[in-house]
Amino acid sequence: MINQSYKALLSGKSIIRELSEYATARGKEIGYENVFDYSLGNPSVPTAQGYTDAVIDMYQNKNPMEIHGYSPSLGIEWVRKTVADSLNRRFDMDYDTKHIFMASGAAGALAHAFRAVTEPGDEIIVFAPFFPEYAQYIGRTGAIMKVVPPNTKDFQINFEAFEEMINEKTMAVLINTPNNPSGIAYSTETIKRLAAVLEAKQKQFGHDIFLISDEPYREIVFEGADSPYPSKFYDNTLSCYSFSKSLSLPGERIGYVAVNPRCTDADVLAVIMGQISRGIGHNCPASTSQLAVAKVIDETSDLSVYETNMNLIYDALVDMGFTVVKPGGTFYIFPKALEEDANAFCMKAKKYDLILVPADNFGCPGYFRMAYCIDTEKVKRSLSVFRKFVEEEYGIGKKG
Amino acid sequence: MINQSYKALLSGKSIIRELSEYATARGKEIGYENVFDYSLGNPSVPTAQGYTDAVIDMYQNKNPMEIHGYSPSLGIEWVRKTVADSLNRRFDMDYDTKHIFMASGAAGALAHAFRAVTEPGDEIIVFAPFFPEYAQYIGRTGAIMKVVPPNTKDFQINFEAFEEMINEKTMAVLINTPNNPSGIAYSTETIKRLAAVLEAKQKQFGHDIFLISDEPYREIVFEGADSPYPSKFYDNTLSCYSFSKSLSLPGERIGYVAVNPRCTDADVLAVIMGQISRGIGHNCPASTSQLAVAKVIDETSDLSVYETNMNLIYDALVDMGFTVVKPGGTFYIFPKALEEDANAFCMKAKKYDLILVPADNFGCPGYFRMAYCIDTEKVKRSLSVFRKFVEEEYGIGKKG
Repeated sequence: MINQSYKALLSGKSIIRELSEYATARGKEIGYENVFDYSLGNPSVPTAQGYTDAVIDMYQNKNPMEIHGYSPSLGIEWVRKTVADSLNRRFDMDYDTKHIFMASGAAGALAHAFRAVTEPGDEIIVFAPFFPEYAQYIGRTGAIMKVVPPNTKDFQINFEAFEEMINEKTMAVLINTPNNPSGIAYSTETIKRLAAVLEAKQKQFGHDIFLISDEPYREIVFEGADSPYPSKFYDNTLSCYSFSKSLSLPGERIGYVAVNPRCTDADVLAVIMGQISRGIGHNCPASTSQLAVAKVIDETSDLSVYETNMNLIYDALVDMGFTVVKPGGTFYIFPKALEEDANAFCMKAKKYDLILVPADNFGCPGYFRMAYCIDTEKVKRSLSVFRKFVEEEYGIGKKG
Repeated sequence: MINQSYKALLSGKSIIRELSEYATARGKEIGYENVFDYSLGNPSVPTAQGYTDAVIDMYQNKNPMEIHGYSPSLGIEWVRKTVADSLNRRFDMDYDTKHIFMASGAAGALAHAFRAVTEPGDEIIVFAPFFPEYAQYIGRTGAIMKVVPPNTKDFQINFEAFEEMINEKTMAVLINTPNNPSGIAYSTETIKRLAAVLEAKQKQFGHDIFLISDEPYREIVFEGADSPYPSKFYDNTLSCYSFSKSLSLPGERIGYVAVNPRCTDADVLAVIMGQISRGIGHNCPASTSQLAVAKVIDETSDLSVYETNMNLIYDALVDMGFTVVKPGGTFYIFPKALEEDANAFCMKAKKYDLILVPADNFGCPGYFRMAYCIDTEKVKRSLSVFRKFVEEEYGIGKKG
């Protein structure tokens, strides 16, 4: 019989996807250039040329059985070594090949990390606002997701609520910095304090608490932002990475888990993830994607447009009187809506063909997310529409 | 804390992988050309040129954001349509786009199919001999794998044992034809009889019983073999396919599940698999792999060498007096060992640098598997070594 728990999920549609589908349909009606679609976090800059060149070179010049052969389930050894070396160079770590597990994007990396360090019934703490898919990722492991309410002052961690929530069933804590949807990077101070709490709680409860650090936006950090490498500050850290955003290739599903060499069972955790992959049918990311990202390990696409867009939007929102924390990275901004019900606010914006995502699903009601991975020219045009919207609907900025 | 059930798996090493590692190490010692490695089922013929050309063309001429953008979790719509159309043309089916779910190889396809039609505690029946990874694939869903003992006469289904084993807890039956490790294709007669049993049992138990058909060797069928498309004969069939063997690109992890349009809940099963993929972190196979296989949907690599090798080995084994059923496809052959303990037999062969895999793990003790995806020239050289081995160790073929 059809699995009933999965069937039950069919009714629950993602609000982001729904809005994005609306935007596409509306674009067909009135011209896509007239729809200001801030719904989807789909990278908008071209794929890094080095990646494209590496793939073409492989396909033209290499033995196909070498590039298309089975990858070991932990990933191709040379690729894992290249990832380890790069992290060591950049963050002064001491990873070895055995600490790297190649995964199908950040989603795949998280799926393995969760399963490696929790058993069904364990608790995993997540901080609001958070990427709504976490509920799915965690729910299907059998572990229980506990959500720490947001600190809306600056979107750093709400430590008071966190220390109240953490208990002997907490086996892992998930962070995402720079953050989707807030755009905020956790500061060195935040990460240090988080590490101190975790160290103390490990002692108190007498067991490991793993920090699972979801870092797909690691390379999109803006001027002046303090965005440290979390694993540097806490030994029991599994860093989950995706090349989707840095190289602009979300469809290729390529990333990794980096196991801190000083964490408990550091030498076997990647092997355990290899075992997990047998059970959930991944096996490994595509061999050619592995080989190509390794060839361009320290490159990124030209990501500067995201900061340009952020500054334009942030300044305009502040000027319009929005409450908004300036993002330190990513391609998201997360302002407070102009009425309590962010859904109502976003529905009104929709009438102006401004597609904004209400943040109830992100664990932060009353806020909305804008994904500004779109052309700067379009951002500029959208801002006068935005001003019109808030003036007509909320009487803000109306010329006396 | 580290997940103990996964940690426990670390001690259990795959015999195939162990033998293959031995062969590689031994090759370094005495020259790889002197090791007759029949351990691994790794395709040995070059990747289909059409696939390579399609990838290079995409990377050179297409908008990177089109080819590397997020794929919907069910797969790229045009790709799914192309798969459906091809199956309809070839097998006179009536699949629509909505019946196709793109997956990361056959392992990914099976991971989704099992979860879609079973709940933890349900039973899934498997026929020996079977691919040992099935135990992992099924075990991790929470369902229970039940093994029907082999019919060693011709390696078709042992119906007597099957009808005894099937019960009200049986929610799915897994077949693999052409079969790894036996090389046998289930005949039309076998599939028809299987369908009849399943139809009767569905009525008797008052619930669906899904046939999950694992078909990575579908395109490797030898002259004269009767190898029908199972879904044609039984409505509640999920066909799991991989392009690994047909196009020779096992590392690319690309395949699909095709849901029979007449099965129960046919219209939502692929959507359910999309939900499952969120929970286990796949999301979808690499977008460029999807696009490229669709471009060459009806092509294969030149697979003829496998039949050439099979005939050489089969004739020689028969001549040496082995009990062996002639394969109808794949690149495996599955003879009976010359002593009861196939492990001992294979250990003796190893002394001659003949790497054979004992079949205890395949659910068929006393037999061994040879994966003849190697050069024909090497096959020929191996056969005189084989004759020497059985003569010296078992006194067979000794000149009077």
